[in-house]
Amino acid sequence: MHMDFSFSYYIGLAGIMVFAISGAIAALEHKEHHHDVFSVFFTGFITAIGGGTLRDITLGNYPVSWVKDENILWAIFLGFLLVIFFPKLLTKLRNELFLFDTLGIGIYTVLGTRIALDHGVNFFASALLGMISAIFGGVIRDTLMNEVPFIFRKEIYATACLAGAILYLILNSFSTNGNMNLVVSASVVVLIRIVAVRYNLGLPKIKIF
Amino acid sequence: MHMDFSFSYYIGLAGIMVFAISGAIAALEHKEHHHDVFSVFFTGFITAIGGGTLRDITLGNYPVSWVKDENILWAIFLGFLLVIFFPKLLTKLRNELFLFDTLGIGIYTVLGTRIALDHGVNFFASALLGMISAIFGGVIRDTLMNEVPFIFRKEIYATACLAGAILYLILNSFSTNGNMNLVVSASVVVLIRIVAVRYNLGLPKIKIF
Amino acid sequence: MHMDFSFSYYIGLAGIMVFAISGAIAALEHKEHHHDVFSVFFTGFITAIGGGTLRDITLGNYPVSWVKDENILWAIFLGFLLVIFFPKLLTKLRNELFLFDTLGIGIYTVLGTRIALDHGVNFFASALLGMISAIFGGVIRDTLMNEVPFIFRKEIYATACLAGAILYLILNSFSTNGNMNLVVSASVVVLIRIVAVRYNLGLPKIKIF
Repeated sequence: MHMDFSFSYYIGLAGIMVFAISGAIAALEHKEHHHDVFSVFFTGFITAIGGGTLRDITLGNYPVSWVKDENILWAIFLGFLLVIFFPKLLTKLRNELFLFDTLGIGIYTVLGTRIALDHGVNFFASALLGMISAIFGGVIRDTLMNEVPFIFRKEIYATACLAGAILYLILNSFSTNGNMNLVVSASVVVLIRIVAVRYNLGLPKIKIF
Repeated sequence: MHMDFSFSYYIGLAGIMVFAISGAIAALEHKEHHHDVFSVFFTGFITAIGGGTLRDITLGNYPVSWVKDENILWAIFLGFLLVIFFPKLLTKLRNELFLFDTLGIGIYTVLGTRIALDHGVNFFASALLGMISAIFGGVIRDTLMNEVPFIFRKEIYATACLAGAILYLILNSFSTNGNMNLVVSASVVVLIRIVAVRYNLGLPKIKIF
Repeated sequence: MHMDFSFSYYIGLAGIMVFAISGAIAALEHKEHHHDVFSVFFTGFITAIGGGTLRDITLGNYPVSWVKDENILWAIFLGFLLVIFFPKLLTKLRNELFLFDTLGIGIYTVLGTRIALDHGVNFFASALLGMISAIFGGVIRDTLMNEVPFIFRKEIYATACLAGAILYLILNSFSTNGNMNLVVSASVVVLIRIVAVRYNLGLPKIKIF
């Protein structure tokens, strides 16, 4: 996909930055972590680029995003600096960060699904790759922190991405208004996520053991 | 490799389904896991496609299998539905599932080795990639469950795959009867695995510390 | 990058072998590990090839190194044999092994950065990919051992690689003497690492929680 300097591009960069912040904070909150500047930066970096990189190498979509576009690295570095110099501000802005993270996964889901479609990928694989773009940085972050990934422990998160990806694919098959489809689908991800957190909603659980 | 609708193709799909079942059951048996429908499905999905995906991205074999062939996703979804709706049946069928899993790794090993050969890969790297195709979904599953992968803890499993892969490579250098070589080599994987479990056989251990 | 049979090629192989030794020893020291010959070999294998493989698949640099060059597998196998047959020697040679590991990450960092440059990658992404080449085998080893990766717990290691990679990129923009740049940059990695361990130096820590 041609990455133009559009609205979605800048929201995507903001999402990357927030992913990096969440990774850096996870490093700082972790007991076994060394908490030095490198390990904090690198945890943020992996969290931020993990999902998109996995999508790109699964698709053979070269060069992968952060290798092609240096702005992604600067967004990550900016997030890292914010964590180091304004930790108290970030603590106060927890709600705003949540909103950015949610916007980030919304945009990332739809952009990832779009990139998969552009590679001629089938319907459900495109939806899964869109979701993976959005969530897998967090999965890798948690795995490196030696924890069961939060997507397996918490309320609706990945499912919101999957729903948004599927909606985008359906809209896309009816309409050629790409920007409208993108905004609507990403908004649905954001909406589902916010409603799920606000009302503490979860998917039905399976109990067989 | 051209994926024709042959015997090995359907056995491969059955193997995928059993891998997905094993992943879904691992999620359901895990204490920290949320056990909602998404997380159970997604653990099964990663378990099922992990090994083949790692093989394909290591070879640059694009598009990777589940991105190309939607049947793989349906096989995974079917495995997931079986776990949800017939959990007691699956508990009863534990022996049959073991057999399918063993058939699955046998077929997967040989198909993976074949794909590596078709990419001009050297002897031992082909054998290792065949083995990785068969076992790495389980490795990723265990890592995400925050456990040391079972291939490092249990009786002969990966070794059976490695032996089958090497046998296939040797047979292949003597004979052009591809189907025969495939069946014999996969059978040897199955046989080694069954004998190892039946008689609780393991490889020699190393004790140096 | 054309892999010629030069000085850096053989040092690289020695580095691979030492990575494999460190992985095999990590397996043998691990309590939950089965300690059979396969699992010890395979842990060494993953440790040795993990970083270079991740670099290659992120770059789309096919065929990846160990798939192309069988010598890498032989170097890993040799490391494995040394662990099995001369464990006491390896214990005695701990200092020499440390030196080889340090040489290995130095060479690996610079070769990885070079390969990224040859793929037209931007400055900082090249430096990060050079570092990832050197350290990610160890990250994967620790993750599979169910531990927080040592790069997040110990003294300066990855940072030495990052510094060497950036130095190489700077030297490279001034001078076309590739071998000189390689030797100087790898030496700086080695020097930083040795000084850090000798004087127990670490990066500044961040304490915000």
